[in-house]
Amino acid sequence: MQLFYDPDVQRGPHALRAEEARHAFQVLRKRVGDELNLVDGKGGWYKATVASISKRECLIDVTLLRREAARASYSTTLLVAPTKNIDRFEWILEKTTEIGIDFIQPILTQHSERKNIRTDRLERVIESAMKQSLQAWLPALGNLCSFAEALQQSDPAGQKYLAYLGGQNTPQLHRTCRPGGHVTIAVGPEGGFSPAEAELAVSADFNFVSLGPQRLRTETAAITAVHTIAQLNW
Amino acid sequence: MQLFYDPDVQRGPHALRAEEARHAFQVLRKRVGDELNLVDGKGGWYKATVASISKRECLIDVTLLRREAARASYSTTLLVAPTKNIDRFEWILEKTTEIGIDFIQPILTQHSERKNIRTDRLERVIESAMKQSLQAWLPALGNLCSFAEALQQSDPAGQKYLAYLGGQNTPQLHRTCRPGGHVTIAVGPEGGFSPAEAELAVSADFNFVSLGPQRLRTETAAITAVHTIAQLNW
Repeated sequence: MQLFYDPDVQRGPHALRAEEARHAFQVLRKRVGDELNLVDGKGGWYKATVASISKRECLIDVTLLRREAARASYSTTLLVAPTKNIDRFEWILEKTTEIGIDFIQPILTQHSERKNIRTDRLERVIESAMKQSLQAWLPALGNLCSFAEALQQSDPAGQKYLAYLGGQNTPQLHRTCRPGGHVTIAVGPEGGFSPAEAELAVSADFNFVSLGPQRLRTETAAITAVHTIAQLNW
Repeated sequence: MQLFYDPDVQRGPHALRAEEARHAFQVLRKRVGDELNLVDGKGGWYKATVASISKRECLIDVTLLRREAARASYSTTLLVAPTKNIDRFEWILEKTTEIGIDFIQPILTQHSERKNIRTDRLERVIESAMKQSLQAWLPALGNLCSFAEALQQSDPAGQKYLAYLGGQNTPQLHRTCRPGGHVTIAVGPEGGFSPAEAELAVSADFNFVSLGPQRLRTETAAITAVHTIAQLNW
């Protein structure tokens, strides 16, 4: 199945958003009368019939198939330091979206090697992964902010974990995380979180966790942590 | 810590293999008297002192630190169809090495989009991931073979699973796989295994498993399956 994404899609006649229209008609050669499957990124599944195609606009006739009340029985926020190599960061976005995530908050940390990201480009990576994995919920991508700010904004009621290399006898995430509710997991840059950052996280009610016996790259840590949380909930 | 890999390293005077020597002396600017940490890819950890550097050869004085009896308390074989985009296949090699794997067997399947791979280039990806994640065991990479051949060669005593999309009420890998011993997990190409291939696998004592509710790309399926098996054993 090929899925289209339009955040403004609604029942009845609708002009498909420009990028998706281009893809539908120029790449996939959809014609008047053909059917499309759409999601709105907010849990809505739609079916549409192509009504007319012009250079300016592509009109479709839309029916709502169903609306999901929530992405899943749990929700996950990932705080993560963008990697120096942006491909590796795009991999985090693509893979965590496939596996299942709600909010990705890029953070600036003491050992961060990358201080800026192009949010618009990264959002397209997430959109594409959502469609490819046939999901109706678009994970949100926050604007790059300091680690301290991200800690302040973290859900006070949820479980909060920080992947920390410096701790002794740190419990493993899959043995300490509980199913359901909201989980925030923080993953640092290649050099890890600094001791001061770890302390700050503890004062914001974060608990140290280990992600396994090996030294993992940032993107591997992020993906396996999100997978661990998802799997506890399947 | 920076780790070097030399499969032939042994105690006493030793000529460091050419690629590692280049990296040590030209990139990292190691000099006579400097120390190096080495692994042999077979569980051996070594420390060495640079004895002499010439254009032809780099001699080191080697001490064995310790020898690990096994990579882990379990072992994993991944049968996987190489992806059309080779970057995505290299990601499988890099990430499963970081997480922990013993043998990767590339397979040709009915829906395979890629019919050839460059084993030498791929082996370097694995070497680099082993060193980066500070491990002393080099995962082995098989030569591309047919799925039928790979099934025949699978360990008759171990657990054998196939990630299959077509099954009804398929148990999830993390709920059915048991810790310890040898586990083989088979992951198909983008189009999945064909029904005939699934049948063939069943006759070779493979059990169908699900890797979660989402449609995952081949590389995501491979990485999360290997992570699931590893985590059951941590």
